[in-house]
Amino acid sequence: MSRSLDFLTEALRRLPGIGPKSAQRMAFHLLQHDREGAAMLSRALYQAVDTVHHCAMCNTFSDTEVCELCADESRERALLCVVETPADQMMIEQTLTYKGLYFVLMGRLSPLDGIGPRDLHLDKLVGRASDGVVEEVVLATNFTNEGEATAHYISEMLKARGLKVSRLARGVPVGGELEYVDAGTIARAMLDRRSA
Amino acid sequence: MSRSLDFLTEALRRLPGIGPKSAQRMAFHLLQHDREGAAMLSRALYQAVDTVHHCAMCNTFSDTEVCELCADESRERALLCVVETPADQMMIEQTLTYKGLYFVLMGRLSPLDGIGPRDLHLDKLVGRASDGVVEEVVLATNFTNEGEATAHYISEMLKARGLKVSRLARGVPVGGELEYVDAGTIARAMLDRRSA
Repeated sequence: MSRSLDFLTEALRRLPGIGPKSAQRMAFHLLQHDREGAAMLSRALYQAVDTVHHCAMCNTFSDTEVCELCADESRERALLCVVETPADQMMIEQTLTYKGLYFVLMGRLSPLDGIGPRDLHLDKLVGRASDGVVEEVVLATNFTNEGEATAHYISEMLKARGLKVSRLARGVPVGGELEYVDAGTIARAMLDRRSA
Repeated sequence: MSRSLDFLTEALRRLPGIGPKSAQRMAFHLLQHDREGAAMLSRALYQAVDTVHHCAMCNTFSDTEVCELCADESRERALLCVVETPADQMMIEQTLTYKGLYFVLMGRLSPLDGIGPRDLHLDKLVGRASDGVVEEVVLATNFTNEGEATAHYISEMLKARGLKVSRLARGVPVGGELEYVDAGTIARAMLDRRSA
């Protein structure tokens, strides 16, 4: 067989969730049916590794020192929303309900995976939130065990520095039928009920 | 967000079976946790596109004009085994039961996908099998509808040129329990039964 093909198959296995069979199938497909796509992917990888950094303000991926969103003068600078990933940030942006700035953790606290406060660079978040302009930090980490633990840890840390900290509301999802919503969510919605 | 990241996400979607969510997850993973892997994959793709050709004899992927297996003087040159893909060829090699040469179709006849005899370059196979040295062609395409149709088509074509053509035996798989083997396979095994 071909050495270059073996090397390509091996390299494709570095992609998350891709095993030996999938890697081989991808390599065959690219070489047989889409060499243009392979060349394009090669360039895209090279360019991304070369130019993508972390925004100095919000820590998300950016080609520039400060990302477009952080540089946008029309955003409310007193509000800082903490999310786990750029994908989460995009979801919130799509709701059009938030006009403040963000801080992207690029992960979550996960002791089982050996990710502690230092690995998440939480000191960067503390520095960002303590700039004297930020008044409220909205924690929008996931509502998983790890996301909740991360929110709790950050909350304690920022409250100790006198910052106002809030968390996304929990409750029954829009369109949710009680019969099919889990008991934990309903219990939470009952405790957090608000006047109608 | 980052333009380079968008370009990378777009390029990753050229991989077979990768949708927008997976592409985004892969891009984040590479940039956050495995930039070395991303750079390696970039090089591997570039190198593969640049150096991988089709073997002049067997049509499989090869870095050289004629692949190692075809150049191997110890193989029986009177036997030619036709397979659909390099992966199929590797499976047969692993059995250590075949010492002849191969011809790799790099696909199968599939009218629904618009793949006819011309798209498969069957003329190349005819030329290869008619070199005066090949005595028997063993058809080892898959036992799917498309693989069977491909085998039938090639068989007719080569027999018309006076070549001996055979097909891998069908029957109950090794370790197969009749109770769990499909009726079609058992029927075939009954018809093709051999003296014990």
